[in-house]
Amino acid sequence: MLPWDAQGPAEPGSEAAARPRLDQQLGFVLEVDRLKGVLRQSLLRDGSRRENDAEHSWHLALMALVLAEHAAAPVELGRVLGMLVVHDIVEIDAGDTFVYDDAAQATKAQREEAAARRIFGLLPPAQGARLRGLWEEFEARETAEARFAAALDRLQPLLLNFHTGGATWRAHGVRRSQVIARNRSVAEGAPELWAYAARLIDEAVARGYLADG
Amino acid sequence: MLPWDAQGPAEPGSEAAARPRLDQQLGFVLEVDRLKGVLRQSLLRDGSRRENDAEHSWHLALMALVLAEHAAAPVELGRVLGMLVVHDIVEIDAGDTFVYDDAAQATKAQREEAAARRIFGLLPPAQGARLRGLWEEFEARETAEARFAAALDRLQPLLLNFHTGGATWRAHGVRRSQVIARNRSVAEGAPELWAYAARLIDEAVARGYLADG
Repeated sequence: MLPWDAQGPAEPGSEAAARPRLDQQLGFVLEVDRLKGVLRQSLLRDGSRRENDAEHSWHLALMALVLAEHAAAPVELGRVLGMLVVHDIVEIDAGDTFVYDDAAQATKAQREEAAARRIFGLLPPAQGARLRGLWEEFEARETAEARFAAALDRLQPLLLNFHTGGATWRAHGVRRSQVIARNRSVAEGAPELWAYAARLIDEAVARGYLADG
Repeated sequence: MLPWDAQGPAEPGSEAAARPRLDQQLGFVLEVDRLKGVLRQSLLRDGSRRENDAEHSWHLALMALVLAEHAAAPVELGRVLGMLVVHDIVEIDAGDTFVYDDAAQATKAQREEAAARRIFGLLPPAQGARLRGLWEEFEARETAEARFAAALDRLQPLLLNFHTGGATWRAHGVRRSQVIARNRSVAEGAPELWAYAARLIDEAVARGYLADG
């Protein structure tokens, strides 16, 4: 077996753990290619198909570059970008959990924990821990960078939903109060972006894209 | 017309230029959604379909996080990430130019210049100039960050090509000498990654994925 054919995490003391560092790193790089196949609920802006997690992650990184001035507190942009690049990687195993699916939300943490162990475990240990740390920081929403990154992660599907005539809201019978409950945390990371989102939600109701109530 | 329906660059002195800053920024964010529809020659690792520019840009950003230690000179990672996030945006208008298509390469600079003017022109002027600057830095290959980012941009399709049995090389009758000529610049940004790529190219020839000569 050539190094680049190797699969699965390196077990401590195993032959795999002794693989050269670069082979472990490229094994991870190849494995995460699968994020391009994890479909989200959002449609692309042109409505042609569902968005995948890799595209979504790129779009958030681009939004961070453009919208950083609207963060609630000054952020280190490189750290925001790092978090956004890794924030959905666990969905390769755990799948995308639709924010309005309460049953799936209940098991999300457990599924994602197992995924993080396997996927970040493909990397050399210290590096795997560092990347996993970025994901954990994103999930914890405690730093200014994580709150801003999380705000973008909420705002982006809202924008796509509005500009596709509420496609996802309609398909799932989602109501205004649910959208507000799920997204008002945008205000913690970027108050101006929440003010914008709130106007967008009002307009979506006025246009019949989103059910009132 | 509502702000979020606005299209095209703001002309100085026009009503569009007077749009609130956030509306201009979100107009850009929505416009670049189209990068998800720009197809590249590379297949995904599982061979299921062609990769698009948005996915590719995310994959490069992830590679930068993991492989930064292999850069030829120390790099500021946030700057590398910023460059990778914007490096293909001009292809929304100019299309993806296949590296082995010499005729298309001849008109690439002109097409991409016009695209940059239109697309970065959607942003507030100073911010548009800053993002355009990241793209120009990437294209110029003069800084350590740009050389490393460019090395990743060459290595990634090579990895995908190898792991899909040389799908793109076969489809276009590409030969080893062409692959080496087009990719040896990887050595300037990341010598160890070029050493790895050179071994991969040898192995691709040995396996019959890539024509010798």
